[in-house]
Amino acid sequence: MSRPERSVFVCSQQRPPGHPRGCCAAQGSQAVLQAFWKELQARNAYEQVGITYSGCLGPCDGGVNVLVFPDSVLYSRVKPEDVPEIFEKHLLGGEVVARLAASAASW
Amino acid sequence: MSRPERSVFVCSQQRPPGHPRGCCAAQGSQAVLQAFWKELQARNAYEQVGITYSGCLGPCDGGVNVLVFPDSVLYSRVKPEDVPEIFEKHLLGGEVVARLAASAASW
Repeated sequence: MSRPERSVFVCSQQRPPGHPRGCCAAQGSQAVLQAFWKELQARNAYEQVGITYSGCLGPCDGGVNVLVFPDSVLYSRVKPEDVPEIFEKHLLGGEVVARLAASAASW
Repeated sequence: MSRPERSVFVCSQQRPPGHPRGCCAAQGSQAVLQAFWKELQARNAYEQVGITYSGCLGPCDGGVNVLVFPDSVLYSRVKPEDVPEIFEKHLLGGEVVARLAASAASW
């Protein structure tokens, strides 16, 4: 394999129900991850984009959190329906989707 | 929280015994992850370094794989005893530990 141009980490941290920090798994991380993989497959973009899950990325109250490197952009409150836009504009086009980018205070 | 200066992803992918790709979990990823967290705590480096686990990073035959961003450096065959050096030199000092960096062919 070669190094993908961008690497995407979808926080999939789990915590018990009622945990004070909450977690991205309880906010739908699995569906978001599947949406990214679906786009990856549909676009056959394996050379350009690497996608995997991760543990906690920090700002749990803003989940589902998605980190994109090497740009160091954190997306918050990501829903499956946001994923095609992130994929098209940012992962392939290099343009950050500003409406979903985390605030400077949280990242 | 603020954005850490560097983010570390320790591949912790699991696969069934005998799977042709193998996996980082079978090569000791949990001990490597714990070693990173131990260094993080001992150095109280929470502002500078973020550490979490991840799913598959690609070159499974070189596990345990560890990715460092935003530098985009992949370390391969990482053992717990390598972690203090990676932490000191690279994560805090910015100097890549060349002897552990993956070859250009694999990343």
